[in-house]
Amino acid sequence: VADHGTVTVLESLTVPIVQAPMAGGVSTPALAAAVSEAGGLGFLAAGYLTVEALRDQIRAVRRLTGRPFGVNLFVPGDPAADQEALARYRDRLEAEAALYGAELGKAMADDDGWAGKLAVVREARVPVVSFTFGCPSPATIANLKRFVSTVVVTVTSAAEARLATEAGADVLCVQGFEAGGHRGTFTNTARIDDLGLLPLLRRVCAVTGLPLIAAGGLARGRDVAAVLVAGAAAAQLGTVFVACPESGANPLYKAALTNPVFPGTAVTRAFSGRAARGLVNRFVLDHSEGAPVAYPHVHHMTKALRAAAARAGDAEAMSLWAGQGHVFAREIPAGELTRALAADARSALVEALRRHPG
Amino acid sequence: VADHGTVTVLESLTVPIVQAPMAGGVSTPALAAAVSEAGGLGFLAAGYLTVEALRDQIRAVRRLTGRPFGVNLFVPGDPAADQEALARYRDRLEAEAALYGAELGKAMADDDGWAGKLAVVREARVPVVSFTFGCPSPATIANLKRFVSTVVVTVTSAAEARLATEAGADVLCVQGFEAGGHRGTFTNTARIDDLGLLPLLRRVCAVTGLPLIAAGGLARGRDVAAVLVAGAAAAQLGTVFVACPESGANPLYKAALTNPVFPGTAVTRAFSGRAARGLVNRFVLDHSEGAPVAYPHVHHMTKALRAAAARAGDAEAMSLWAGQGHVFAREIPAGELTRALAADARSALVEALRRHPG
Repeated sequence: VADHGTVTVLESLTVPIVQAPMAGGVSTPALAAAVSEAGGLGFLAAGYLTVEALRDQIRAVRRLTGRPFGVNLFVPGDPAADQEALARYRDRLEAEAALYGAELGKAMADDDGWAGKLAVVREARVPVVSFTFGCPSPATIANLKRFVSTVVVTVTSAAEARLATEAGADVLCVQGFEAGGHRGTFTNTARIDDLGLLPLLRRVCAVTGLPLIAAGGLARGRDVAAVLVAGAAAAQLGTVFVACPESGANPLYKAALTNPVFPGTAVTRAFSGRAARGLVNRFVLDHSEGAPVAYPHVHHMTKALRAAAARAGDAEAMSLWAGQGHVFAREIPAGELTRALAADARSALVEALRRHPG
Repeated sequence: VADHGTVTVLESLTVPIVQAPMAGGVSTPALAAAVSEAGGLGFLAAGYLTVEALRDQIRAVRRLTGRPFGVNLFVPGDPAADQEALARYRDRLEAEAALYGAELGKAMADDDGWAGKLAVVREARVPVVSFTFGCPSPATIANLKRFVSTVVVTVTSAAEARLATEAGADVLCVQGFEAGGHRGTFTNTARIDDLGLLPLLRRVCAVTGLPLIAAGGLARGRDVAAVLVAGAAAAQLGTVFVACPESGANPLYKAALTNPVFPGTAVTRAFSGRAARGLVNRFVLDHSEGAPVAYPHVHHMTKALRAAAARAGDAEAMSLWAGQGHVFAREIPAGELTRALAADARSALVEALRRHPG
């Protein structure tokens, strides 16, 4: 059993940088290990992996680094979905699938291998386990803490921060509206809160004393410094790591991040049935309005279609998850990026204090 | 003629705090003077005032302080409006007006006394003149700079920042999506960009070297410190100043800012025909969808209705402009608030550097 008191893994990091877990093949053992080796906290994304693949990835990270790293798990939500809305959406996507010579997948609910993956992270005594899409029960968290050092829960509102604190989380990952990929909102049906990261941090700080990881639209060292000053213990960045050579992202996806043909990002349920921020491509424009609140049903429905679009070299029907800092993504090795972010953050703090000596 | 080189008024401030200009009676000479006396930059809002009232307010500020202050002007936009959509909106609001015993006003365009107000700020040699809703021509800015020390243009995107820099602005006010009140977007028809303040600052820093004032959802000293670290020369706060005793805000409006019956804020054209962020009340819920893109037509149409709602003591049909930090507004004298924000910002910088010594 791991020995841990009130000190979290965050305090053992030499740089306050967390690499966001990015499911769907973007997070890799090489990416996580590079960030952890640089003194930050690398993350594997358990979401959509098989239990076996997760076990393999954890072993692979450990072959590459002895430093702490994390694994992110999706918390299963309400499997109910509006079947009529799903059927309408399937009808709508048939032409889209035909265009890429793909078949739409079965729109089904699953729990993403919840029990099996929890067992894997326990057995492997993964240093940090984080959760997205909900908060595990106090019993689940208490049990997990017998095996792992730090439990992180992703929150998007002060109310969720209070719930996660009461459930026994060690650290909260505070996800602002600017963040790329899926919103971590506990329920899929909740109104999508549009709080920017700074106002959200302020509200979360008012309801919890837990250490916070700040996420959402951060791209440069100055952004990292800004959230540290705003009260976070570390900054989490995802989109800028998508472009790293260690990331598993499709080259089309990497290139799209800085391609000016994509006018910006939007939050959409079009690809997965759950709100997520990505680059605005044709698929987002055409299907966001009709997309039902049905996760992971729609994810399964569109998976083969998205893969076919990627094979066809067409980014217009791929899910190009991206936060609002996407224009700053560059192909830099992840360790180098981590060190540069930390050094620039430090410089920004020193410089601000010099300009505002009080 | 004022003597000014590349040094802006921002550099003469002893605290990096700007009080946002808030039109409609919230900004007062007493509020602006209190902030300026505390070492920050107070602002009068020329919008909706008569030329004479603006002249009087400038004199009143000068009786109260010898420190620099600013005046904000609305830049006139395209006066065209969809008359059919306006007529439909008027029909829709008739019942609402009857409810409060008010008459809907004439939906007309005007230029808010543009030439007269420009003449007033020139004659009075107001230290800082800022603009919202557009960028004046290079000739207008060049002429103005013969009389005033610093010209500020409000921007909501990198493209607008580039235009304002090329037009000769001395300083940009960078307004994030979190900000309360009207979005400063140059044209009313533009897609409303949802960039949070930190990603927006990062993009603006990439296209201009001008000093920046950062605005949007800032409420506490830590937020001020965050934007200073992120690259701003000063932080602008509006909503927290609404609650000050020196503000001219209706007491119902002040109380609403922290009233939990209002679930949050939203961007709406319902009150004025131009996008603005305010507390979500009944009027916002009922009329945001039908509201036409027609400014200042809708402002004039709803003015008496909003005033009648205020007289009736009903905040549900008042325009309760608020940024995402509204829950932190407290009734504190403006000078005290300004000093506390600056002291807390400084502490946050020192504390962050202590926690992250590099």
